[in-house]
Amino acid sequence: MTNGLPAKLKPAARVTGQRQDVWSIINEAAAASPQQPIVNMGQGFFGYNPPDFIINAAKAALDKVDCNQYSPTKGRPRLKKAIADAYSPFWGRQLNPDTEVTITTGANEGMLSAFMAFIEPGDEVILFEPFFDQYISNIEMPGGKIVYVPLHPPKDGPTTTSSAANWAIDFDELEKAITPKTKMIVLNTPRRLLLFLRLIRLGIPPYPLPSLLLTIKTDNPVGKVFSKEELQKIGDLCVKHEIIILSDEVYDRLYYVPFTRVATLSPEIERLTLTVGSAGKNFYATGWRVGWLMGPAPLIQYVSAAHTRICYSSVSPLQEACAVGFEQAEGEGFWDQTVRDMRGKIARFVAVFDELGLPYSDPEGGYFVMVNMQKVQVPADYPFPPHVASRPRDFKLAWFMIQEIGVAAIPPTEFYTDANAWIAEDYMRFAVCKEDDVLEAAKERLRGLKKYIK
Amino acid sequence: MTNGLPAKLKPAARVTGQRQDVWSIINEAAAASPQQPIVNMGQGFFGYNPPDFIINAAKAALDKVDCNQYSPTKGRPRLKKAIADAYSPFWGRQLNPDTEVTITTGANEGMLSAFMAFIEPGDEVILFEPFFDQYISNIEMPGGKIVYVPLHPPKDGPTTTSSAANWAIDFDELEKAITPKTKMIVLNTPRRLLLFLRLIRLGIPPYPLPSLLLTIKTDNPVGKVFSKEELQKIGDLCVKHEIIILSDEVYDRLYYVPFTRVATLSPEIERLTLTVGSAGKNFYATGWRVGWLMGPAPLIQYVSAAHTRICYSSVSPLQEACAVGFEQAEGEGFWDQTVRDMRGKIARFVAVFDELGLPYSDPEGGYFVMVNMQKVQVPADYPFPPHVASRPRDFKLAWFMIQEIGVAAIPPTEFYTDANAWIAEDYMRFAVCKEDDVLEAAKERLRGLKKYIK
Ligand SMILES: Cc1ncc(COP(=O)(O)O)c(C=O)c1O
Ligand SMILES: Cc1ncc(COP(=O)(O)O)c(C=O)c1O
Repeated sequence: MTNGLPAKLKPAARVTGQRQDVWSIINEAAAASPQQPIVNMGQGFFGYNPPDFIINAAKAALDKVDCNQYSPTKGRPRLKKAIADAYSPFWGRQLNPDTEVTITTGANEGMLSAFMAFIEPGDEVILFEPFFDQYISNIEMPGGKIVYVPLHPPKDGPTTTSSAANWAIDFDELEKAITPKTKMIVLNTPRRLLLFLRLIRLGIPPYPLPSLLLTIKTDNPVGKVFSKEELQKIGDLCVKHEIIILSDEVYDRLYYVPFTRVATLSPEIERLTLTVGSAGKNFYATGWRVGWLMGPAPLIQYVSAAHTRICYSSVSPLQEACAVGFEQAEGEGFWDQTVRDMRGKIARFVAVFDELGLPYSDPEGGYFVMVNMQKVQVPADYPFPPHVASRPRDFKLAWFMIQEIGVAAIPPTEFYTDANAWIAEDYMRFAVCKEDDVLEAAKERLRGLKKYIK
Repeated sequence: MTNGLPAKLKPAARVTGQRQDVWSIINEAAAASPQQPIVNMGQGFFGYNPPDFIINAAKAALDKVDCNQYSPTKGRPRLKKAIADAYSPFWGRQLNPDTEVTITTGANEGMLSAFMAFIEPGDEVILFEPFFDQYISNIEMPGGKIVYVPLHPPKDGPTTTSSAANWAIDFDELEKAITPKTKMIVLNTPRRLLLFLRLIRLGIPPYPLPSLLLTIKTDNPVGKVFSKEELQKIGDLCVKHEIIILSDEVYDRLYYVPFTRVATLSPEIERLTLTVGSAGKNFYATGWRVGWLMGPAPLIQYVSAAHTRICYSSVSPLQEACAVGFEQAEGEGFWDQTVRDMRGKIARFVAVFDELGLPYSDPEGGYFVMVNMQKVQVPADYPFPPHVASRPRDFKLAWFMIQEIGVAAIPPTEFYTDANAWIAEDYMRFAVCKEDDVLEAAKERLRGLKKYIK
């Protein structure tokens, strides 16, 4: 019997045997907490609407017959063109909307489509740790094997705060991780976690390029930011070994330091690179499920083919609205506004951790703030349910905060392999993409942590 | 090299090696035809909008913050409840919206989620022929093996028109197709093809239950409709061998004779049955990509898990609009209107085939009309491109009609295995879910076939 099912009906391994994911643990705990309503700073959905010009475009699309019917499987021509036009300046040439852009059902199904397009059972995919949790099942679904490559702390270890420049990919190690079966490598930049961040509290200066990052087990997360040279080295390795680069750039409009797109480094690297985008992240509309991949035509065609077999086509009227979004965002000043607004929210929110004396990281991209909670003492006899008790300290902290403080946040060890979970087990991840009054309510509640801080 | 890619970058087998699909052949031919604009009666998208009460609900949802953000992975609670309430009368008990309903990105990704949930490489899935083409890649993606079971013509063969009651599943053959590896069987009722139809021109009376169907190579398609007893027999076999029934019922509001849902036959059968629905088909909104599966909680939970890994969640504001659709459809008289309107369109359209003396089928469900074009003579030296020349006669007919008549329709041999393609090679499938003026324009052009009819 598998969860009450007779053997003959048993589910496939790909949907079983995994422990409960962090999102359902936190959402269920939040729903059942005595502290209602919970202030939810967990998942990275926005607490406000897309801008009016995009909402109005969606409403207008709903009045058009063809916008309510199947779009072409590769996406609505207007959206493909709007994306090609919006990204052409970064690429330094006109992208071809018909062959170099394909629309997917969110970035998530876009990544899955890329893995489905190129991974055969046993093929290997290199993933830097920490990782976005959905990558794991997306790689495993077509039978891919994940090869994790960690980023390395400086030799003087976890006791000394040191410059992020000392934190590095070990390129020998990365090259050793490459085998004849290595088909793809996944990059994520700007990165969704704390990562690629500077610890403003310690006065560490911002780095030139938000990218992969690393934390160590001290009071302070330390931001590792890949230099252009490092990205070039990764790219060169991929060129040498012919490895497809899947670059998850869903936060590509939310960076607070200059940001380089790996596809634009050289024609040799571009030839191997699939870049992933998300209208959900770009336009504050995570529920719209519009994403895209950009890349060389010989690769994109197979991503499109996989997408057709997975979803057939993506949501039509909201594709049309996103087309208008890309056509008008620059003129509306939306991209700049986005950055200004998010910086303001980060500053507003982190003030409470200054009050509490808890170290935190100031993101260089995205909208997640990582707070180090080593100083927070959970009472020794505090009761945890088994599915929380069996997880690292950050899960217990998250549970405790939901029960006692009334604020939900995400325990980041979910994004590490078990072996490396220690790196993140004192941290808590807060999504600040919420209305200012929600941020203030969260701060007021978080002040309740004071009595647990020694 | 695979299509210009070096060996190291070669795409996965699941996205290659298949011949071009019928949709792109027809759409590309239509776009390139000298007869512009083409009257497109090919794909089954609607030529008109969802009703105002649903469009307005979508616009209202776009004003709500939470409706623009990630919905729960299993779907918005309001939609799950609206579906559970709408279907409970058919089930004769209250369905549980939280455990017995899960929302997907269209019926298509819903079917894929079901296969991903239960099929391990080598597991077998039984499919009746003809089939909806997307089933094939959806079954093959998780490594499933398809076992085709044909429906059998009566012994007196293709020369005599005989009662549909004589057309049958050979239950011995069906049972022989079952092996210890048989995990699922796919049913599709009401059926999307010609099938389950009566040939009104020949005065064959309507049958009680739209369901699987069959045609023979005569002038006339013959509709095979499964009786409740036959469905019960299929169900009993599945109970005996513990086989999951995946019942694709996307046309479940568009039937013109009474229709039985296999899940409602008995608790033993219900326990094994996943029923698939589509808001795209129900509400004239194929581009919205909202579908669902209903079934017993122990099965549905794994479908939800697979969906989470594929798309994460489905389009949020349009889920909300579909919830309103289900809440209000009955009161608005929408389901009845749907049937009346479609019957009217069918009657309006088929009149031209009476004029031309071409036999056609009157669908008992859905909105596809199958026309037998054996009498249409394509000039012997007519030039076809290789990808059409290599396919059965119906592809040539479709190409010819696009070039010379200016009407696009779908060649149905795409929905058969090569061995059985002969059954359908004289037919052409027309989707009548179009505005009346489009139907009239199509008729006017189709009169141009007269000179090719001997
Ligand atoms: C790094 C990263 N990639 C991809 C996604 C998924 O984006 P989408 O909502 O467009 O599927 C997310 C969402 O949280 C993300 O953080
Ligand atoms: C029989 C059948 N099943 C499933 C689908 C897919 O439905 P959806 O558009 O909801 O994915 C179709 C669409 O044509 C269909 O005809």
